[in-house]
Amino acid sequence: MKKIYNPEKTSWKSILERPTACIDDIEETVLKIFDEVIDGGDEIIKKYTTQFDGVSLDEIKVSIQEIEEGIMEVSDDLKKSIQLAKENIEAFHKAQQTDTVVVETKEGVTCWQQKKPIQKIGLYIPGGTAPLFSTILMLAIPAVIAGCKEIVLCTPPDKEGKLNPAILYTASLCGVTKICKVGGIQAIAGMTFGTETIPQVYKIFGPGNQYVTIAKQLATKFGVAIDMPAGPSELLVMADDTAIPSFVASDLLSQAEHGVDSQVILVSTSKEIIEKVEREIEIQCTVLPRKEIAAAAIRNSKLIYVDSDEKAIALINMYGPEHFIICTANDSFYVENIVNAGSVFIGNYTPESAGDYASGTNHTLPTNGYAKQYSGVNLDSFMKAMTFQKITKEGLLRIGEAIEIMAAAEGLEAHKNAVSLRLQSIKSEA
Amino acid sequence: MKKIYNPEKTSWKSILERPTACIDDIEETVLKIFDEVIDGGDEIIKKYTTQFDGVSLDEIKVSIQEIEEGIMEVSDDLKKSIQLAKENIEAFHKAQQTDTVVVETKEGVTCWQQKKPIQKIGLYIPGGTAPLFSTILMLAIPAVIAGCKEIVLCTPPDKEGKLNPAILYTASLCGVTKICKVGGIQAIAGMTFGTETIPQVYKIFGPGNQYVTIAKQLATKFGVAIDMPAGPSELLVMADDTAIPSFVASDLLSQAEHGVDSQVILVSTSKEIIEKVEREIEIQCTVLPRKEIAAAAIRNSKLIYVDSDEKAIALINMYGPEHFIICTANDSFYVENIVNAGSVFIGNYTPESAGDYASGTNHTLPTNGYAKQYSGVNLDSFMKAMTFQKITKEGLLRIGEAIEIMAAAEGLEAHKNAVSLRLQSIKSEA
Repeated sequence: MKKIYNPEKTSWKSILERPTACIDDIEETVLKIFDEVIDGGDEIIKKYTTQFDGVSLDEIKVSIQEIEEGIMEVSDDLKKSIQLAKENIEAFHKAQQTDTVVVETKEGVTCWQQKKPIQKIGLYIPGGTAPLFSTILMLAIPAVIAGCKEIVLCTPPDKEGKLNPAILYTASLCGVTKICKVGGIQAIAGMTFGTETIPQVYKIFGPGNQYVTIAKQLATKFGVAIDMPAGPSELLVMADDTAIPSFVASDLLSQAEHGVDSQVILVSTSKEIIEKVEREIEIQCTVLPRKEIAAAAIRNSKLIYVDSDEKAIALINMYGPEHFIICTANDSFYVENIVNAGSVFIGNYTPESAGDYASGTNHTLPTNGYAKQYSGVNLDSFMKAMTFQKITKEGLLRIGEAIEIMAAAEGLEAHKNAVSLRLQSIKSEA
Repeated sequence: MKKIYNPEKTSWKSILERPTACIDDIEETVLKIFDEVIDGGDEIIKKYTTQFDGVSLDEIKVSIQEIEEGIMEVSDDLKKSIQLAKENIEAFHKAQQTDTVVVETKEGVTCWQQKKPIQKIGLYIPGGTAPLFSTILMLAIPAVIAGCKEIVLCTPPDKEGKLNPAILYTASLCGVTKICKVGGIQAIAGMTFGTETIPQVYKIFGPGNQYVTIAKQLATKFGVAIDMPAGPSELLVMADDTAIPSFVASDLLSQAEHGVDSQVILVSTSKEIIEKVEREIEIQCTVLPRKEIAAAAIRNSKLIYVDSDEKAIALINMYGPEHFIICTANDSFYVENIVNAGSVFIGNYTPESAGDYASGTNHTLPTNGYAKQYSGVNLDSFMKAMTFQKITKEGLLRIGEAIEIMAAAEGLEAHKNAVSLRLQSIKSEA
């Protein structure tokens, strides 16, 4: 672990630098598979499933029977836990609903803004050792609240051509309308262009490995939107002497176990806490099943001492962490002054895991510094705001001349004429 | 103009197809200029300004004196018109402010969502014959309401190294914090990477030619966000026998004068209206200053007859127009059932020009079918939603076990451990 004491402000940028990945050769592979899927549809999807997932499928679509069998395999304890999480996520995202905004800007000029659901969306859920059913909760629940009509889920099958039961249970519980056994680049291609089985969608959500991430990025060139650009997961903890070192260490490790490229940073105004947390990490790390991954990520982590809260918050806002835990005597200072972070966890009893699973907030958050300009996934991610206006004759008399003058000044006479014709007609009636 | 009568649903997709542009060779130019600006800063910016705009500048930044001189050159009529537009745009965008959403999802588990301004934003405004000061209104006004700290405006200088006075006036009126005389790819490069004069920003807004559009797209690979992907402007009018043909023709022409690639579509349940509008277009077109452009766009336009409102709305939702004008006896049917459109204009006295300039709605809208998944620019475009949570010991006792079970089921033991440690500590205190 790199310990850094009171760094000069000029060095902050390089201290906070995130590693960047080379993507050029992946792009070629992605575009090749995209081209093939456009022409070959399901057949190509199956070809790549055989090649990458090692299984030959008859059907891409998961059958009702498969879903029912999966549901039976999930333990009652896990079902109850998922249901509790669903309740909280539902409550928090329902509260984000907004009314239509109506303003009569001038008498007779009524403008309104109304949000409408994106009609067709796609969710990508990675397969592999950790079946991320929690991400289905985070994406399908707000999609249903928003009113999305089609909610397609793509996730890769295992070597027997099956999906994890918890994924099937959660998808079925949360209102996914179609589940397809397809992963990787070919899944993103399927949802971008549509195949006989996989519906074409307007926006794709969800995490994935580097191939999926780059496929999602490139998909945006073909008319589909994505939730946000993705990068390795991140946690920054701000701790002073009031923090409990073992708790802080457990949070840093929970981030570190995600992958060797996870970003883990501790900022503190206490040198003692830095030493204590470091020792705790060593102790706790040894017993973790994913300790090799966690240890590798921890080696790249940074423990940064600064001598004031003001410096700390400036440095944190420059970094813009995905997850930000605050454990200090002065929590409200950080809550008020944080402007760049995905999700903020306050106090010793608010671990990041709570937000990852069950407190109600969304865990699909901007990484890689994107908290500076992107929201985490929320209800609005599944909707678009449309505007409407209706102007009466009297209303047009009030604003018409201003429009004529502005249009003429921009050299757009036909824009002016659309108003002039109407004003003439209104005046000739009077 | 292409007239199409009662097309089969299977042919809708091809009828509604938008022309696509080839972008590969532009990408290379963009990346070359990006690379040069990263290394060379202001010097390279000036080099390209000389090359593309034909003027050699000493200073990129517009001085206070230049702004003051510009303001004096704008006529009082135009100033008053811009002020009226500002009032309406301000009123409509202020009304879009949302309160912090606070939910106690379980006793002791408090989650909230709060929007914070994007700290640094960039506005691009094209130069040329039509000085689009109206776009400054549409972008700077909501940015100021959102609370953005830095609002940088880039726009190309004319051959004398000057900016249009109306641009200077509007920028100054609306709270732009810095104006730079730079256009094209080099402007986007400057705001993406920062130079000695041009501040690096987190999100870039505004229209532009194909070079600017592709530069904005590519800028997203370098950590900056953009308002939305861009395409040629579009208008679809739905008119029945209650529409006034000369008004409809004037709206179609106001769209057509934007550029030869503008998309103009009339859908009607009345064959008579189609004939009448066609004749009116011919009459009105002849007197327009930009008639060559308008006539070229009109040649590619489509007049589509369908025999029912249901077919009409299905076709319109498949297209997803940027601007959608409704002039029918049954306006409410269309208002209720439109799900894919940028901005909707209702009735014979609501021309698109009103929304382009002064009614209060934003004119930066999704083109190219992106109304299916993107909002037009609105207050939220200048903010990001952050989530916060604070959990008490009692709260963690309520949801902790569910988190442990879910984390274990996903194979993430360190996530589980972050909760288990805390639960053990709470229980040992009791």
